[in-house]
Amino acid sequence: MGRGLFVTLEGGEGAGKSTLARTLQSSLKTDGYEVVMTREPGGTPGAEQIRELLVKGDAERWSAMTEALLFYAARVDHVEKVIRPGVDRGAIIISDRFADSTMAYQGAAGGIEFSRLHALHQLVLGDFKPDLTLLVDIPPETGLARTRDRLGLEVRFESKALAFHERLRASYKALAAESPERFLILDGLHDPDELASIALKAIQDRIDHD
Amino acid sequence: MGRGLFVTLEGGEGAGKSTLARTLQSSLKTDGYEVVMTREPGGTPGAEQIRELLVKGDAERWSAMTEALLFYAARVDHVEKVIRPGVDRGAIIISDRFADSTMAYQGAAGGIEFSRLHALHQLVLGDFKPDLTLLVDIPPETGLARTRDRLGLEVRFESKALAFHERLRASYKALAAESPERFLILDGLHDPDELASIALKAIQDRIDHD
Repeated sequence: MGRGLFVTLEGGEGAGKSTLARTLQSSLKTDGYEVVMTREPGGTPGAEQIRELLVKGDAERWSAMTEALLFYAARVDHVEKVIRPGVDRGAIIISDRFADSTMAYQGAAGGIEFSRLHALHQLVLGDFKPDLTLLVDIPPETGLARTRDRLGLEVRFESKALAFHERLRASYKALAAESPERFLILDGLHDPDELASIALKAIQDRIDHD
Repeated sequence: MGRGLFVTLEGGEGAGKSTLARTLQSSLKTDGYEVVMTREPGGTPGAEQIRELLVKGDAERWSAMTEALLFYAARVDHVEKVIRPGVDRGAIIISDRFADSTMAYQGAAGGIEFSRLHALHQLVLGDFKPDLTLLVDIPPETGLARTRDRLGLEVRFESKALAFHERLRASYKALAAESPERFLILDGLHDPDELASIALKAIQDRIDHD
């Protein structure tokens, strides 16, 4: 195959993105593809340092616009050094979160107009976007209950109020409705193996179309 | 006095901005003004953390666009938490570097079109700009020789080639030519006390006009 595929996983906290990512990676590797698992914010040494500024500390430490700029700084590094080179050499890049997270978190849920974030994306990355976005949708109460069971320090976004997560979910659905050709919505309450099977079929379809 | 004044110091490395800043601060305090000395990147706890990512490490660690986004992330925090509140309560804010540095360093000298950086500024901060910008101009060889005599770890920008610093100087002059009402160009080879006296007169003129 020539050009690879850029797949992103999106959704609220505890939706099951990480589990899905691991299953996809394993299946696609078995099928003989080069698979690069990555995440945002992060995915490069520099972007992981920016991630530290974003995921740690008080929930209100940055304004939504400062956050959006930090996310895009990390994203440019990630796209330039990992995503574009990977897709160019024919790999399947699977990123846990990408630009739709900024739209959902800092946009509708954080108060920045979508048009300003669209303008920021266009200014920085032009028309670059994922080939396929898997949106794992789950009721916030269920997702938050799952994340509370995890250990770990990266709780800044999880600690925001339930109403925030309701707006987040609605924002994701609005983004999916805007770009139905790019999004596949998966029901995070379904069996993880079933989700992975639907997602793999969608990935395979995109590869076959290239 | 009601609204205060936002003054920025700009120029290449070793031009004498820090010495000028200290003299201005001292004189204006003696005259009874509240003076806030600050700097970019930095000026708030969060922005100082972003500064660490920008001033340390390899000279080529970030692309010019990633740098510009990190600078603007730090700048938004700085404007929201220090500069706007200070000007609103009537203080004189003196910042060692501000947006013109991004234009000069990441723009003309780093290869990003001015129009993209103007668009980024407009998107993030709208028409917000300094009331007065003091550009301390000095031949790069002289400025770099001065910085080599300093001790310190923040040498990332100083280590770039002389040609970069020549472009930087030309960029600053172009920015000053675009906004003559905002810029005052000071000759960094002149006596520091003389520079401070010219700068103080310009600051006093702006205060009297308000």
